[in-house]
Amino acid sequence: VRSAVEGLVERDTALVDRVLGGDVPINQLHIEIDSRCFKLLALHQPMAVDLRAIVAAVKINTDLERVGDLAINIAEAVRRYMRHAPVKELIDIPRMADIAQGMLRDSLDSYVRQDISLAQRVLNEDDELDALKTQVFRDLLTFMLQDPSTIEPSLDLILISRHLERIGDHATNIAEDVIFMVSARDVRHHAGEVGAS
Amino acid sequence: VRSAVEGLVERDTALVDRVLGGDVPINQLHIEIDSRCFKLLALHQPMAVDLRAIVAAVKINTDLERVGDLAINIAEAVRRYMRHAPVKELIDIPRMADIAQGMLRDSLDSYVRQDISLAQRVLNEDDELDALKTQVFRDLLTFMLQDPSTIEPSLDLILISRHLERIGDHATNIAEDVIFMVSARDVRHHAGEVGAS
Repeated sequence: VRSAVEGLVERDTALVDRVLGGDVPINQLHIEIDSRCFKLLALHQPMAVDLRAIVAAVKINTDLERVGDLAINIAEAVRRYMRHAPVKELIDIPRMADIAQGMLRDSLDSYVRQDISLAQRVLNEDDELDALKTQVFRDLLTFMLQDPSTIEPSLDLILISRHLERIGDHATNIAEDVIFMVSARDVRHHAGEVGAS
Repeated sequence: VRSAVEGLVERDTALVDRVLGGDVPINQLHIEIDSRCFKLLALHQPMAVDLRAIVAAVKINTDLERVGDLAINIAEAVRRYMRHAPVKELIDIPRMADIAQGMLRDSLDSYVRQDISLAQRVLNEDDELDALKTQVFRDLLTFMLQDPSTIEPSLDLILISRHLERIGDHATNIAEDVIFMVSARDVRHHAGEVGAS
């Protein structure tokens, strides 16, 4: 994700190209982690927080694999974008990338440390990402309406902002799983206590 | 999903409005299914195919909840789209909706019946959905370049086509989980045998 957005800002084709195809090790880990989780469930029959931690790992594993796919989607959009003249100075998209990466890092740290308050912070940051996405869309719509030659590259920037927002969504999923893992409290859909412990 | 796209084709505001907010029962079921799966895992310590079926249920549960969110995203885009004159006759988007709904139904049937060949069929259909998404994008880009007044509504149609493609992605996830559940064979990332049975 970092390389793809850095490649966009610096117009660095080589950097972007390294992202494309970079999901092979992620895909291998995806399969390996799933396999290990199933073995743990089958062999050790864990209970309560251990059970929730392993099921959370299966779900987080899926989220991370999708983040890898989204990094590639971003890189593909950056490659198309670089075939045109730059539409505008990029401010909001690098900002979105910073927030999304921070959310992802915090959500994973919260899993490792079983830290509910850190997970909660991730949930709060999602709104800012959403606001920036709307802002990017509005700015680019103005450009497109004024000058049709900016339509194609603007569409790629809009796509990139949406991919970044979806990375934030995955971080949110992970944070929700962590809160459930630690507290057996389901924070999705503003639910109350539905403990499995 | 069906109501949102029917509302788009028929320009039926009432139908679209019923979709918005229609995720409350889905969200309740999401929480309840998760809770039941954890109880099954904790109380019955299932093995092999039973274990894989329950973990698959946890993952499918997440996929279906996201499909509900996407139906709402589609309905929101339809509402915005209807504020403008129609850009074009809609052919590819209803076709995409049919395919995505068919994939979703088949993927769930394949889970219930533990039917690998049906799950495999779902995986094959994803390419058609992807091709239609590209077609929709190209058509609308042409309209936008010719007539800037079509930019805003065209963007919403592009978004709708991407939401439908993501529904197909969720059906694909479910189908992959079914194949793993039944055969302990991981078909993601063209992986070989990594059985957990």
